[in-house]
Amino acid sequence: MKFRRSERLVDMTHFLMNHPRQLVSLTYFSQRYQSAKSSISEDLVIIKDTFENQGIGTLQTLPGAAGGVKYIPKVKKEYAKEFIHHLCQLISDPDRLLPGGYLYMTDLLGDSQILNEVGKHLASAVSDRDIDVIMTVATKGIPIAQTVAHHLNVPFIIVRRDNIATEGSTVSINYVSGSSKRLQMMSLSKRSLKEGAKVLIVDDFMKAGGTINGMVNLLSEFNAIVAGTVVLVESDYEEERLVDDYISLIKLTDVNVKERKINVVEGNYFAEQANFL
Amino acid sequence: MKFRRSERLVDMTHFLMNHPRQLVSLTYFSQRYQSAKSSISEDLVIIKDTFENQGIGTLQTLPGAAGGVKYIPKVKKEYAKEFIHHLCQLISDPDRLLPGGYLYMTDLLGDSQILNEVGKHLASAVSDRDIDVIMTVATKGIPIAQTVAHHLNVPFIIVRRDNIATEGSTVSINYVSGSSKRLQMMSLSKRSLKEGAKVLIVDDFMKAGGTINGMVNLLSEFNAIVAGTVVLVESDYEEERLVDDYISLIKLTDVNVKERKINVVEGNYFAEQANFL
Repeated sequence: MKFRRSERLVDMTHFLMNHPRQLVSLTYFSQRYQSAKSSISEDLVIIKDTFENQGIGTLQTLPGAAGGVKYIPKVKKEYAKEFIHHLCQLISDPDRLLPGGYLYMTDLLGDSQILNEVGKHLASAVSDRDIDVIMTVATKGIPIAQTVAHHLNVPFIIVRRDNIATEGSTVSINYVSGSSKRLQMMSLSKRSLKEGAKVLIVDDFMKAGGTINGMVNLLSEFNAIVAGTVVLVESDYEEERLVDDYISLIKLTDVNVKERKINVVEGNYFAEQANFL
Repeated sequence: MKFRRSERLVDMTHFLMNHPRQLVSLTYFSQRYQSAKSSISEDLVIIKDTFENQGIGTLQTLPGAAGGVKYIPKVKKEYAKEFIHHLCQLISDPDRLLPGGYLYMTDLLGDSQILNEVGKHLASAVSDRDIDVIMTVATKGIPIAQTVAHHLNVPFIIVRRDNIATEGSTVSINYVSGSSKRLQMMSLSKRSLKEGAKVLIVDDFMKAGGTINGMVNLLSEFNAIVAGTVVLVESDYEEERLVDDYISLIKLTDVNVKERKINVVEGNYFAEQANFL
């Protein structure tokens, strides 16, 4: 069946959105739609322009026999400002205060629309890096890792604080939680990570950086390479942090339980992210 | 700025894919693109036809002043057959066998492309139900719950087997794990679920149904309503199962550790799912 341009544009948009950062050859589209490559190239120009104008991302075109097109999710700086400002407002709601100065964030980590935006913003910031797999730690890191993995189109693996039978052989390490200074254990299924893999570490929250530093140490047991660290929220920490190379969307600067005040500002996202549309 | 039809088709496809099951008024699109509602209606006919032909889903149009359009993710039966067959092949690989007859599934639960398809297939099967929120239990249920939630555009909440400070007050219950007959505890953050909410239960694996039955009991503590149960894998169970109303993609019929054989067939998906395209 031959496709009209209007039908091709709808189906290609769906296809590209479902396969970010994957090189798709023009031959593939040409056969899928029974259309000339010249028509496909014209379609791609329309999609690229619309994606860029609407803040969806960009298309990278690689010429030659092994060439094709790649959809790269990106965000516009002004939209990122708006979204992060919106997140700051949500998080600074005093009703989030829990005993011990903790913040209730469970609703945000389970909101499909917010997660999708968080994933797109964090993925965009590292979209120029070479990443094979994403690593996080159970439980609260999982939703963030999964959405970043979706937008980067790579698998994600989960480090656990327990050992269960359905993971097979595991590699475990001890690490010191940075702020509480307690010794803890984390483990990763042995077959989940290949030697030499380039790994992006993702978590929901970072204070002293002890958990993330633990993941870095665990990666060295696998001879894997740290490709970067991204977190949703970093918290101010007066002592020296164990991790210094990271990207955060949001920064928690002060939690005052007595006055019921939470102070949240934008993280280092705008200083560290150089891939805006 | 006025949009041309080709640009509108690309941007509307992106917008609708990011907002499944959400009613979008024609006025919204008309203002977004500075275009007449008659043009928007024509665009929507093209998108609907392409979505249906390509197995992406359908568009429901509601007429009148409060009307608009809704994207409903759906799958074609023949494609579902193909995808589930592919999953069966992946899962029946004898290298997945672990001590105790457990199966290694961690790679599948961390594969962005597979998760996206699993989520779309499970969401399609319940797309005609009234669902406010999705509930799962940590840890392995989370990726499935998150992707189903994404395709249904509802939030998801996570039941935990421990109690942590960042969840606030919780409601806990004891339940008997169906196959091991051991007494276990599960808890849910009190403020994460409203009274009367219609809840879809999602999990990766079901044998006797003890964990899912536990979630059903936990829901009654919240006066919430079970809107259905969907699982990735069900396992044959010789005794009476604690749950009988569910949808499964895949069924594990036999695991023979000695002969290194895993027998996997399609679940009750085709018997239970009535929303195919």
